Amino acid sequence: MKLEDEFQSINNYFSPKIIGEVNDVFIKIAKIKGNGIPWHIHDEEDEMFYIIDGQLLMEIKNEESFRMNPGDLFIVKKGTCHRVSSEKECKILLVESKSTQHTGNVITEITRSIVEQYYD
Amino acid sequence: MKLEDEFQSINNYFSPKIIGEVNDVFIKIAKIKGNGIPWHIHDEEDEMFYIIDGQLLMEIKNEESFRMNPGDLFIVKKGTCHRVSSEKECKILLVESKSTQHTGNVITEITRSIVEQYYD
Repeated sequence: MKLEDEFQSINNYFSPKIIGEVNDVFIKIAKIKGNGIPWHIHDEEDEMFYIIDGQLLMEIKNEESFRMNPGDLFIVKKGTCHRVSSEKECKILLVESKSTQHTGNVITEITRSIVEQYYD
Repeated sequence: MKLEDEFQSINNYFSPKIIGEVNDVFIKIAKIKGNGIPWHIHDEEDEMFYIIDGQLLMEIKNEESFRMNPGDLFIVKKGTCHRVSSEKECKILLVESKSTQHTGNVITEITRSIVEQYYD
């Protein structure tokens, strides 16, 4: 599949779309714009971010924040309090355990259940 | 990390480099050139291919083969006999279970153990 085509079917920001499965992880894509994602923690799960297009601000509690550009990859390790945001639209590829809630231990209006993230 | 920098440290084709872990899967990168990878099967493991640069020929037994270009993503499901090759250098991102042998059930001279694939 062409990721660019898959991104075109995403109409909402912060709403991950599951595009595949590799055993116990989901492969997802998402569009990020703004700062709608709250600070959150995944207690037991790592989370991979890969930047396809745009720029992502990665903030990690008590560490220096940094901007990620296309071709940059970063893995947020389990138990790490983090938040991502982007001034302009940013397209990302995610690898997450199937059990991962994308807003971690925090439920907000942008939180989507796994069923809501599923591909048809 | 910048994937482009990571690719510069890879000197051999068909020799995956582990660049991170997301719970039970490894995130790897590899350079492919030529047809050195044998037909093989991962009995219990799915394998994700994402094309960073170049063009990859994906062959699947008894199915039509297809060429993957940058931005294309494909998941080879467990139990699928497959082979990948590339005439010119191709750079790929892989997501594989930690137990996956990159040449599956076939051991050849290009087969690298997990220790040989590990990042420092």
